[in-house]
Amino acid sequence: MAAAAAAVVANVSSGDSKAAFAEIYSKLKEEMLEDPAFEFTDESLQWIDRMLDYNVLGGKCNRGLSVIDSYKMLKGTDVLSKEEIFLACTLGWCIEWLQAYFLVLDDIMDNSQTRRGQPCWFRVPQVGLIAVNDGIILRNHISRILQHHFKGKPYYVDLIDLFNEVEFKTASGQLLDLITTHEGEKDLTKYNLTVHRRIVQYKTAYYSFYLPVACALLLSGENLDNFGDVKNILVEMGTYFQVQDDYLDCYGDPEFIGKIGTDIEDYKCSWLVVQALERADENQKRNLFENYGKSDPERVAKVKDLYKELNLKAVFHEYERESYNKLIADIEAQPNKAVQSVLRSFLDKIYKRQK
Amino acid sequence: MAAAAAAVVANVSSGDSKAAFAEIYSKLKEEMLEDPAFEFTDESLQWIDRMLDYNVLGGKCNRGLSVIDSYKMLKGTDVLSKEEIFLACTLGWCIEWLQAYFLVLDDIMDNSQTRRGQPCWFRVPQVGLIAVNDGIILRNHISRILQHHFKGKPYYVDLIDLFNEVEFKTASGQLLDLITTHEGEKDLTKYNLTVHRRIVQYKTAYYSFYLPVACALLLSGENLDNFGDVKNILVEMGTYFQVQDDYLDCYGDPEFIGKIGTDIEDYKCSWLVVQALERADENQKRNLFENYGKSDPERVAKVKDLYKELNLKAVFHEYERESYNKLIADIEAQPNKAVQSVLRSFLDKIYKRQK
Repeated sequence: MAAAAAAVVANVSSGDSKAAFAEIYSKLKEEMLEDPAFEFTDESLQWIDRMLDYNVLGGKCNRGLSVIDSYKMLKGTDVLSKEEIFLACTLGWCIEWLQAYFLVLDDIMDNSQTRRGQPCWFRVPQVGLIAVNDGIILRNHISRILQHHFKGKPYYVDLIDLFNEVEFKTASGQLLDLITTHEGEKDLTKYNLTVHRRIVQYKTAYYSFYLPVACALLLSGENLDNFGDVKNILVEMGTYFQVQDDYLDCYGDPEFIGKIGTDIEDYKCSWLVVQALERADENQKRNLFENYGKSDPERVAKVKDLYKELNLKAVFHEYERESYNKLIADIEAQPNKAVQSVLRSFLDKIYKRQK
Repeated sequence: MAAAAAAVVANVSSGDSKAAFAEIYSKLKEEMLEDPAFEFTDESLQWIDRMLDYNVLGGKCNRGLSVIDSYKMLKGTDVLSKEEIFLACTLGWCIEWLQAYFLVLDDIMDNSQTRRGQPCWFRVPQVGLIAVNDGIILRNHISRILQHHFKGKPYYVDLIDLFNEVEFKTASGQLLDLITTHEGEKDLTKYNLTVHRRIVQYKTAYYSFYLPVACALLLSGENLDNFGDVKNILVEMGTYFQVQDDYLDCYGDPEFIGKIGTDIEDYKCSWLVVQALERADENQKRNLFENYGKSDPERVAKVKDLYKELNLKAVFHEYERESYNKLIADIEAQPNKAVQSVLRSFLDKIYKRQK
């Protein structure tokens, strides 16, 4: 009964965060449309308005919401002042803006069709490659928002440096992914665990896992230099998250995850193909070389058969178990209980996820 | 004789700046390739190395060099310490990196063929749309360089805010240009002096004219809030510079300016077409609507004939004379003599330029 009541309270509180979070989006958008640093025309106002709604909204906002949740845990209370809620939500939205920026540009580079259940922004009639500039504007909005609401705070410089460093890591990871896929298309053996890990860590883990917690830490007045271990744990968790993503692309329920995976067709440097290469004999390797990265369904089926032969489902479950145990041990070794709860709540959200 | 000697000294000194400037590029590039924020592979190191040489080098470096020249004038001496030279050159290179970033992405959006006498970066085999991410990396390098060399300086935050604000203005100007050209293609009357001025001011003037001087001012320990007039004068000069550019696109010597202008073919919102629309009667307007923005040389010739009928050469020369007089008056009204020399040196470089 106590547990059930606690669950209800937690739900209400997380529902509250969501409502507060959604409300603040409109305010931030309004500010972007009234920025005195540019003389907007009616057309450019309408453009930005529509572009923001199309690209910043529509996701699950996990990254953004986790800033508020992490901040509450670090403070050890659900009761925040209006200003605290506003600042935490604002940083959360900065991460959502960052995510939108990456997605708009990644979709152009990958020539993708859809995103979050609608056509990719650059595929919208009248948009096309103006989307490149829209990506830039999304990134610029983050600097504008930070300047507007955090200039003068003692951690303003740290906040800017944090977003810059995380963006740089992400863009570098993206470059590595793009180059590796190019090389891999000519020679599949270029794919290996080291390169896979490096891509995943830089391209996804820093901005998705470390950044929200780092924002919450700065907001709590902490110095990020004292949280090197926390950074490592979160990057580790982000890596595990992406491995799950690679696994679900092949083995997840399309109904449930909301898309049909095409990593095999797209020649992706997926954790599965890397594991297959590690384990395949010469014959199986030849099979992989012949069939990986082709859109023909028969060839895709052959790759999947090989994955089955190599027992990759079991390999994944073993990896999942090991990662979890290692993460739990690392979390428990953290001296700070509040930090422990933050890390555990991230891990709980992703452990054995099906989507 | 004194004047000739002074000219020689000035030449030597500007030659010196150029040599010092060039040397510092290699050092900055080296730092970017050794950045501990990313674990580079050999392939990604080679990629960045080549990408930087291809895109950051090859221009005239007018923007970058003018940081050093402006700084010398503000200090009232040609003799700078090694550290001062290094910091001024570094900020100069940040502007060159910014320019490279804009050009790489603009060329993709405009589907351009060549840049600085070589194929646009995205047209290089193996590059393609990876160039979008390279643009992002170029922008990120600026933050990395600033952090590396200026963190801890009292003006570090101002420097970051300056680059952010100027980038935002430029991207907003670029958006306005893209939208306006879209609208203009359907209805030429969307082009007018107000919109032309706004595009030019934001897209070009801030980063090309204001930014180098603002960098030199920060380096001299000045507060930019006290230099609002200087900002306005430089933005005015940048606008005049772009009007010259539009003029030379049609009337410049292709041998001399190094390219064949295609503003008429490309439906550009050029100062010339805007002036033509201001002055044309109904008949002439119809002529313009029919022939502007088509690649057919006969139609281009008809537009040029109309420009002649409307005496646009003379209109330009009158504009040039008026702009110059206004700028000289504004410069002379400046209380600070050092600032006057900086502004006059910019104006001297562009007044009646033929390329």
